This record gives sequence, structure tokens and C-alpha cells, in this order.
Amino acid sequence: MVKNVLIKIAYDGTLFHGWQRQPQKRTVQGTLEETLSYVLSEDIKIEGSGRTDAGVHALGQMATFQTKSGIPVSKIPLAVNHALAGGRTPVGSKISDAMILDAEEVPMDFHARFSAKGKTYRYVADFGKVDIFKRNYRYFFDAKSNIDISEIKRAADILKGEHDFSAFRNADDEERSPNKKIFDLQIKNEGSTIIFEVSGDGFLYNMVRIIAGTLIEVGVGRRKAEDVKTALATGDRSLAGHTAPACGLYLKEVYY
Amino acid sequence: MVKNVLIKIAYDGTLFHGWQRQPQKRTVQGTLEETLSYVLSEDIKIEGSGRTDAGVHALGQMATFQTKSGIPVSKIPLAVNHALAGGRTPVGSKISDAMILDAEEVPMDFHARFSAKGKTYRYVADFGKVDIFKRNYRYFFDAKSNIDISEIKRAADILKGEHDFSAFRNADDEERSPNKKIFDLQIKNEGSTIIFEVSGDGFLYNMVRIIAGTLIEVGVGRRKAEDVKTALATGDRSLAGHTAPACGLYLKEVYY
Repeated sequence: MVKNVLIKIAYDGTLFHGWQRQPQKRTVQGTLEETLSYVLSEDIKIEGSGRTDAGVHALGQMATFQTKSGIPVSKIPLAVNHALAGGRTPVGSKISDAMILDAEEVPMDFHARFSAKGKTYRYVADFGKVDIFKRNYRYFFDAKSNIDISEIKRAADILKGEHDFSAFRNADDEERSPNKKIFDLQIKNEGSTIIFEVSGDGFLYNMVRIIAGTLIEVGVGRRKAEDVKTALATGDRSLAGHTAPACGLYLKEVYY
Repeated sequence: MVKNVLIKIAYDGTLFHGWQRQPQKRTVQGTLEETLSYVLSEDIKIEGSGRTDAGVHALGQMATFQTKSGIPVSKIPLAVNHALAGGRTPVGSKISDAMILDAEEVPMDFHARFSAKGKTYRYVADFGKVDIFKRNYRYFFDAKSNIDISEIKRAADILKGEHDFSAFRNADDEERSPNKKIFDLQIKNEGSTIIFEVSGDGFLYNMVRIIAGTLIEVGVGRRKAEDVKTALATGDRSLAGHTAPACGLYLKEVYY
């Protein structure tokens, strides 16, 4: 009997060429398909909730796949994680940069991408001293002055709700409609770290990274919260900020 | 005029084949020599305070080198770090996995290794849930039960002082004398993290990693604090614990 399986995946995007399968390149989708095919002894193709670019991380990417394997679904994470890590040594810990956190059987018409109702992304920025051990996991930027967190929050409030986000997408976007709804946009500031968490029904290409770049520019005084209103109204990309780098971005959660 | 320069270096050891220069391999010494030679326009050879193995990190490795360059010593860190990172992009942060933190001119007879009076190493272990974003920066081990921190502290106290550490070195050690003095061995436990900080006048090959492995085995009840006494007295390697993996180890400080 064919089963439809939904898996939750975490990955460190640093050494992957993004999510999507590509010939001769190490990608998350390709690596998982290879490992699942090995573990389940059949040819497995997975469908993710969406792509992530090279360097982008995931705390809770979701994917579905079909299998005829008799292996209990609950055993899949451990078996796959073991294979991904190339087996564990007796004393050391050998941990891969991708990991299945959870697996469950879902109805046959459930699809990781088409069934998704929304997503939450996290963006981590830091205006403090560079820490080389965190260089792949946050965006270090030189603020040159204090950060105006309340001005960032004003700008974030303007972005909430349903808008035409044309000013917040990059050129090579395949998505048809620029209208998206942001349910929530939280700003957390602790020490020199700023964490942006944005939830929405869908995102244009690079939208979260442009939102992060724009809000950072607002924080350092290069733009005003009001400018965000103009960017939304005109759809002019040049009125929004830079695309913050991939390494600060995490796909946190997918909602169904 | 020739100057003798002392530099303080931090590196993420994950993608380096250790400290020591090797043909065709990316090492910290090799990378720094190449970059310093480029920045100072002369052939630079550096001497570190000691080697670190592949995967081992440094918060404060020290090295000396001689230069005839007229570039002010205080400008060297920024110039080298910029070159190491391949230049900065206007918007993103491009940070290398090695960085010069500080540079100062020292007397000609000062030598990073021979002038060193002692060192502090940090070892980071974690008996909690595996976090893939920290997989290269700490040793995740499965404790299967509670950790007995006070028993670890008892064992640590036995290791302090001057001893023959033959039981705590691995076979391919070039060091002549097994007698070393541990000034201090601190244990910090916060949540599921255990941090060992050990200071001493010198360390045998893999000594800190074997101390960490032994103390972890004491913590999980596989060995007793008293066993450490026997290991020291007999010099029998099999009476000490496993060599904890490289990724948890940091060279924190070198004393002069």
C-alpha cells in the first residue's frame, strides 16, 4: 500500500546549494532523496513546501513523499539521520547538516506545498562585533551608531497586512501575484542581536531578505518608516532596502 | 628595519586541516602566511604557539613573524582580515573563518612558542538534544541519564597540580616529558552544556580531549573520580577515557 508521508526537516544551509535538486550539486532535496531512497530501498522523490536559496537555513522545512515501504513511518527519522551522518562512531558525535525531525503519515491528497496555509521566517541580524563562529548563522552589519528599534517597529507595523509587495521582490521572481498578506512581523532586540520573525500566507522571491535589509536601513537611519509606505504604494524596488544576505535567514515553520 | 610581530588569531577549525602548513591542504598557518605575504609584499613565515588538529578552534592562538614592511603594525589586522574575507561586498557581510584579532611589535627574541608560559583550553560538551547549527562547535553526547557534576568536579580536582600525564596522551606524541602542571581546571554547567576550562604550563598530544572524555565518562557514571587517581599513578592509557572529538575544543589563551 502506498503511503503519503510528511516530514519536518532542519538544515544548516551553509554547505548546500539551496533546497532544489540540481545535477552534480549538493542540495537539500537531492541529499534527502538519495538518503530516503537508500533507507527505503525504492526511488523516492520529495516535494518541499518551497525552495530555499544557498546559505538559507531551516528549523522546520516540510516535505511530502510517497512510499510503498513497510518500514514504520515513525522509524524513518532515526534511520535517515543515521545514514545522513554516515553512521555514528562509538565515541564521537557525527552529525550531518540536515536532519529529519519528525515524520507522519498524511492523507494521499496532502501536499507539502499546495496544502500550506502560511509560513514563518526568522531573520537574525547583529550590529555587534563579528563572531567568526556565527558568521554563517547571522548577518553582521556595521551600524556605526545606535539602532533605533522603535523606528524599526513603526516600519514593521506598516508592512503588516495585505499589500502589493512588488517593491520587496527581486527581479527573477516566478511568482505571479505580488499581493501577499503578512499576519505578523515581530522584532526582538537583545544586546546587539535583532531577530525579525515574519509570518505570512506566501512570500515573493527574496521578500523576507529585502524586508530585513529595509528594516535594518530604517534602524540605522538611512530610511524612515514612512518610506516603507511609499515603497508599498509605488511598488518601486529602489525605494526598499538591500537584500540582506542568505546566511541570516531561517525557514522556521510551515502552517497547514 | 626588521620588526618582530606578535599576532592574536581566532579561527573556526571546521574547514581547516589543522594549524600546521601542509602542501595542497588548507591550513590556518598556510592561509595566514599566504595572506600576510600578500598584504606585506614579502615572504612571511609565522610560528604559532603550538599546533591544533583539524576541527579544533581558537579564540586566542598566538603567532610571531618577522617583517621589513613599513606598514604600521596596528594596521595589519584590518588589512589581513579584509584580504582573508576576499573583500567586503557593499551590502553583505563576508567573513572569513580565520581572523587576526590583534597585532603588536615585540622584542626580537620573543617567540610565540618558546616564550609561552602556559595556555588555557576550553572544551564544550552537551548532553542535550542535538542542534545541527552547533554540530561543529561542541561535542554532543547521549548521557542516557543525569550527569553527576559533583563527581566530575571531584575528578577534576585530582587532575590539578603536577603529574605524569602518560595515561592522558595519545600514541603519536612527540613531546618528551609526560610531566605537566595543571594550574586550574574549571567546570561550568548550564542547562545541558558542560564547559571545561583547563590551564596548564603545557599539554601532551590530545591531553585536553582525553581529560574531557574522561570527565564526561565520570559524569555519566562509567568511571569514578578515584579511577583518575589510578590512571595518573599507573600511566595506563586504558584507565583514562576516550578522546573527545576535536570540534568541542578551543585554544582560548596563551600566557607569556
